[in-house]
Amino acid sequence: MIKIALAGYGTVGQGVMDLFQKRREEIQRRLGEEVDICYVLVRDRERERDVGLYGAELICDAKEIFNDGEVEILIEVTGDISLGYALIKEALEKRIHVITANKSVLSLHLEELSALAEEYGVYLLYEASVGGGMPLIKPLQELSVHGEIRALRGLLSGSCNYILTKMQKEQTSYEDVLEKAKALGYLEADPIDDVGGFDARRKLRILTTLAFRGKVDEKDIVLEGITGIELRDISCLSHMGYAVRLVAQAFKENQCIQAAVHPLALPHSDFLISMDGPENGVEVFGDHFISFGFRGFGAGRYPTAHAMLSDLEDVFFSLRRKESPLGVEGLRIIPYQKKARFYIRSAVPLEFGVDQQLEENVWITTPVAYNVLKAALPREAVAIALGE
Amino acid sequence: MIKIALAGYGTVGQGVMDLFQKRREEIQRRLGEEVDICYVLVRDRERERDVGLYGAELICDAKEIFNDGEVEILIEVTGDISLGYALIKEALEKRIHVITANKSVLSLHLEELSALAEEYGVYLLYEASVGGGMPLIKPLQELSVHGEIRALRGLLSGSCNYILTKMQKEQTSYEDVLEKAKALGYLEADPIDDVGGFDARRKLRILTTLAFRGKVDEKDIVLEGITGIELRDISCLSHMGYAVRLVAQAFKENQCIQAAVHPLALPHSDFLISMDGPENGVEVFGDHFISFGFRGFGAGRYPTAHAMLSDLEDVFFSLRRKESPLGVEGLRIIPYQKKARFYIRSAVPLEFGVDQQLEENVWITTPVAYNVLKAALPREAVAIALGE
Repeated sequence: MIKIALAGYGTVGQGVMDLFQKRREEIQRRLGEEVDICYVLVRDRERERDVGLYGAELICDAKEIFNDGEVEILIEVTGDISLGYALIKEALEKRIHVITANKSVLSLHLEELSALAEEYGVYLLYEASVGGGMPLIKPLQELSVHGEIRALRGLLSGSCNYILTKMQKEQTSYEDVLEKAKALGYLEADPIDDVGGFDARRKLRILTTLAFRGKVDEKDIVLEGITGIELRDISCLSHMGYAVRLVAQAFKENQCIQAAVHPLALPHSDFLISMDGPENGVEVFGDHFISFGFRGFGAGRYPTAHAMLSDLEDVFFSLRRKESPLGVEGLRIIPYQKKARFYIRSAVPLEFGVDQQLEENVWITTPVAYNVLKAALPREAVAIALGE
Repeated sequence: MIKIALAGYGTVGQGVMDLFQKRREEIQRRLGEEVDICYVLVRDRERERDVGLYGAELICDAKEIFNDGEVEILIEVTGDISLGYALIKEALEKRIHVITANKSVLSLHLEELSALAEEYGVYLLYEASVGGGMPLIKPLQELSVHGEIRALRGLLSGSCNYILTKMQKEQTSYEDVLEKAKALGYLEADPIDDVGGFDARRKLRILTTLAFRGKVDEKDIVLEGITGIELRDISCLSHMGYAVRLVAQAFKENQCIQAAVHPLALPHSDFLISMDGPENGVEVFGDHFISFGFRGFGAGRYPTAHAMLSDLEDVFFSLRRKESPLGVEGLRIIPYQKKARFYIRSAVPLEFGVDQQLEENVWITTPVAYNVLKAALPREAVAIALGE
């Protein structure tokens, strides 16, 4: 029997249990061996849950998993950075395969954990960490092993998409949409992780590292959230044929990487504009005229659980490589220098060339490099690149 | 050494050779074994080609491949139905893995060839057969093995997309666009395979069979091409907020499958409308709120060759299941009964309920089932479903 331990039993953990039980018989039939989730690790034994335990033992101490000696797979969905990191690390060192959706841990420790997995000859899989509802990590890993990715860009924050789409469609202020989203449970009480772009940056760090097969830290990625954007910016750009989105992008030029998460005004015909509210979308551009796009739900109990079960089957049937997918290429990360025309709203007149004045205190610049712009931009000014 | 034979040395075959040579060293390094394309099978030894042979032996008789006894992988890109079928069949029976892009052969013989591959314990892989530029077949197979697909729809004909987009954007007649496309080499001298929807139907047959894991024949799929569509239809629908595309779709309801390739008027906000001219796009809808979309170039030397190399690496590293992905479920295929409002242009007045008369001889029907419509539609009338 293959013993599995599930760490965390919140929304996603229960989804994993639910889907796994539905699929279990079929997996066993194909595998010719019994499989079972034997342990469920939780912090609070008494909390009420929607999904039953199907005979798994509810435990509060991870030692029970590691001392068992027969657990072969750990599914980590604690959502906790330090606990998640400790569990993943110990599991890999004990030659236990790990499947995780914990993008915070991955963003901080991807190289170390990948190297550990390779060293101990076990899988570290994380299809669910970015865009749970779409098969993205696997094709991206494959393509990057072929060494062919030149650029990627995407919408990686469902919440930000929801807010920006809503502002535009219903002509509602940022504050009003935010309140509504919180009331509907789309956002945490403190939404800064989403609207500040931190969550999207973690996902971009993972994608960029896989795409270019070298180390990219969170701090290497330029970050600007959507908190400064007002309804009038969106309306103004909309009249000009643009829609504003929080875009995460990275590209490689002359062996140098540039990466950023920032608000961007995209033409309405852009592929990324076809994403609906809470969806994620990613485009990948490779050599040899390869370019493709994905879209799908980025989060939610079942999309995430589904991605983890897909990883689980890959472990059962050994359908993935165990070697680290990160590569050893020495990447040079340089500041984000992309040149673009920017829409700028500022209380203070601009210091650089202006193409067009839209209103008092709203301008469109001539093409200028992002770095130059940032250095010269007055405090509290809002800048949105146009269809970069 | 792993010996590979390449059957066919046209556009795609040369692309495969080219990309393989670029990737060869890296593959060998990771595999720890030499790999080589040893034979190139062609019909005409004298024809001039862009890409050299890199030491491969140019042969005109397939016997040389099968009598060698050491060839482990056949890459079939002959583009010929009977030759392709014979080669693939013999290869599988001789326990040679097969990688093919031949959608005609697959559409006609998918079940037989999949069963053969399973019987002889070798791979039959065909990522390049549908939407070469996007990783589609693999994720679809995975998802369908989980038994979860409810529906799929897509634009599977780059040529038809090109024609319909061009007609709308440039207000050009079907005939004029067709001539232009032929002149540019986008279409064969006899373009009926594309504009009649036959090519798209083959691809849909493959996707539907994989998605629902049961036999679906070409003849089970309703087919209507774009030859009857005039500029005035497109303009009329465009004013109402629709864009016309040749859509391939299949869905499952109450254990019954319905499938069709036909012109459809989609709202401008539809994901599929974001495809540019020669691109393909596919959406997949599954249980558990899984839904995702792909888009990418559907054809071309390098996208196709790239998909085949991805299959090749899966063979080298045993990263796919060898069992037949088609399943054994008894599918009931029923006639295409979907109900929709239809835009109809007809010289003869309509016999069924009409919602709206747009012009003389142009109407929009009340919702009516496709079967009823087809039975009652006057000869030479054009019907386009609205945003079905």
